[in-house]
Amino acid sequence: MRAFITGGAGFIGSSLTDQLLADGHEVVVWDNFCTGQERFLEKANAAPGFQLVRGDNLDTPALTRAMAGCDIVFHLAANADVRFGLNHPERDLQQNTIATFNVLEAMRVNGIKRIAFSSTGSVYGEAKTIPTPEDAPFPVQTSLYGASKLAGEGMIAAYCEGFGCEGYIFRFVSILGERYTHGHVFDFYKQLQEHPAFLDVLGDGTQRKSYLHIGDCVQAMLHAVYRGSARDARHRVQIYNLGTNDYCEVKDSIGWICARLGLQPELRFQGGDRGWVGDNPFIFLETAKIRALGWEPKLTIRQGVERTVDWLGANPWIFEVRT
Amino acid sequence: MRAFITGGAGFIGSSLTDQLLADGHEVVVWDNFCTGQERFLEKANAAPGFQLVRGDNLDTPALTRAMAGCDIVFHLAANADVRFGLNHPERDLQQNTIATFNVLEAMRVNGIKRIAFSSTGSVYGEAKTIPTPEDAPFPVQTSLYGASKLAGEGMIAAYCEGFGCEGYIFRFVSILGERYTHGHVFDFYKQLQEHPAFLDVLGDGTQRKSYLHIGDCVQAMLHAVYRGSARDARHRVQIYNLGTNDYCEVKDSIGWICARLGLQPELRFQGGDRGWVGDNPFIFLETAKIRALGWEPKLTIRQGVERTVDWLGANPWIFEVRT
Repeated sequence: MRAFITGGAGFIGSSLTDQLLADGHEVVVWDNFCTGQERFLEKANAAPGFQLVRGDNLDTPALTRAMAGCDIVFHLAANADVRFGLNHPERDLQQNTIATFNVLEAMRVNGIKRIAFSSTGSVYGEAKTIPTPEDAPFPVQTSLYGASKLAGEGMIAAYCEGFGCEGYIFRFVSILGERYTHGHVFDFYKQLQEHPAFLDVLGDGTQRKSYLHIGDCVQAMLHAVYRGSARDARHRVQIYNLGTNDYCEVKDSIGWICARLGLQPELRFQGGDRGWVGDNPFIFLETAKIRALGWEPKLTIRQGVERTVDWLGANPWIFEVRT
Repeated sequence: MRAFITGGAGFIGSSLTDQLLADGHEVVVWDNFCTGQERFLEKANAAPGFQLVRGDNLDTPALTRAMAGCDIVFHLAANADVRFGLNHPERDLQQNTIATFNVLEAMRVNGIKRIAFSSTGSVYGEAKTIPTPEDAPFPVQTSLYGASKLAGEGMIAAYCEGFGCEGYIFRFVSILGERYTHGHVFDFYKQLQEHPAFLDVLGDGTQRKSYLHIGDCVQAMLHAVYRGSARDARHRVQIYNLGTNDYCEVKDSIGWICARLGLQPELRFQGGDRGWVGDNPFIFLETAKIRALGWEPKLTIRQGVERTVDWLGANPWIFEVRT
């Protein structure tokens, strides 16, 4: 198949690109290189079925042209700056909600009927049911990021129902691993480079989070898409939580990072039970649905954190570029 | 208080305007008169605390100026054309999703901290739990209209969380009564005017729907807002289903309409279990939450349908204008 990947030069997009190419498919990467990295596509560039098109999801005509001839769209491009959403509320609307609409319209014009979408566990707000299943009680949104991903999910589902598309929506926990460019491991690593003697930590360190390694994430998405699990379902959109069967506290993660780096910094907790307004102190997703398709994560959270630390150590350039 | 009502010249907005003025409040009506009607504001125009400003929610600077000095926003303006959403997908995005964002931003600039929003039972998609409570299992969207209202709900909740606003989200069943300008009673009445001998009915007539009279709808919204039920709640956004304790089949409603008009048309059912793609064959909401605040509907569905028929009979001009 010929896959179109929005945000294909990003952390998740470029990893997915490499796997699709390795599986023998053609890939068109679409990226505005706002946070995407050319270096992430070095391997892909050498593959025969690879094409790169620079462009922005808000440029609908160019998006529509670039998508022509593709069989499936992996829509990964997004504003992923969850924490500072309140500083620029229009960003989630434009780069997530409106961008997703533009992708759906470009698909419609091109007659493309399959879409996979990277959503987030943040759409559950502060879930009362933990681990949280896909059909948890109708949540109340707590972040503009979650709200914009929920808006994207809703439009995709409505297009699938109305135009007979086949949709795969993946609600991610935080993803980490090789090519990881933002998030708590990145921030902590960067701090410890600058001052190995201490580490400033938002919240009180007891926020519980779940993480999934990028390799497992990509395999999970492709597992569902290759099987075509949405093709004959009651709803032609299928929603899957993606995560490990476990969670950790921020403190645990700090311990693993410091052990890997051989450091013993003073931990300076900023206090409170969450990192920022709208942060969720506990995200842990029930993944029985995707597991029932036969997928299993290969790495633990600790292994994922350690691989991330190792990759950051081997790629100091990532701290010099805008990500 | 001084209330700003988007869509204040519409069916629900003008009824709310009259009630707020009767309760001694000031009202600024904001409407682009795309479907709003000047005649709906005749009574309001005579009240001292009333002001009308013509404008569109997509004109953010004008919206922001018009809102200055208000204490609360009732955001009712929307594209309410549920049935033909697939013919112009951008309309729900612009007039519902983006418009709601603009309203929230205008509130933020003006320091207005209270919002009430007209959402819809359509956000539940094809609910498995009936009657459907506010915390029903996380639904899959089936219409662009529902998806756009869900997007609006999400942004409002995130603003309430992030900026400390107080939000009231009302998920309506279909509303009918005086000033009703679209929907099945309107369509059937119009058909019977043109050809009293027969009536074309989408679906098979067994679609089950719930209706609420406009007077009860306005009282329910004001009941929650006047009590300030979101002020001290865990979530500063409170979501309420609005409807009666009952439902009817489309066939029942046709019977009441025909009895009221003294007609016995041949019923020509178009077949299928739903009126159109994305139509929901059964919407019936659990209203225990709003009832727990002390509100009760005064009219039955049948009484609501009959009052609608009577009003349409007394206001033939409504069939001549664009609504």
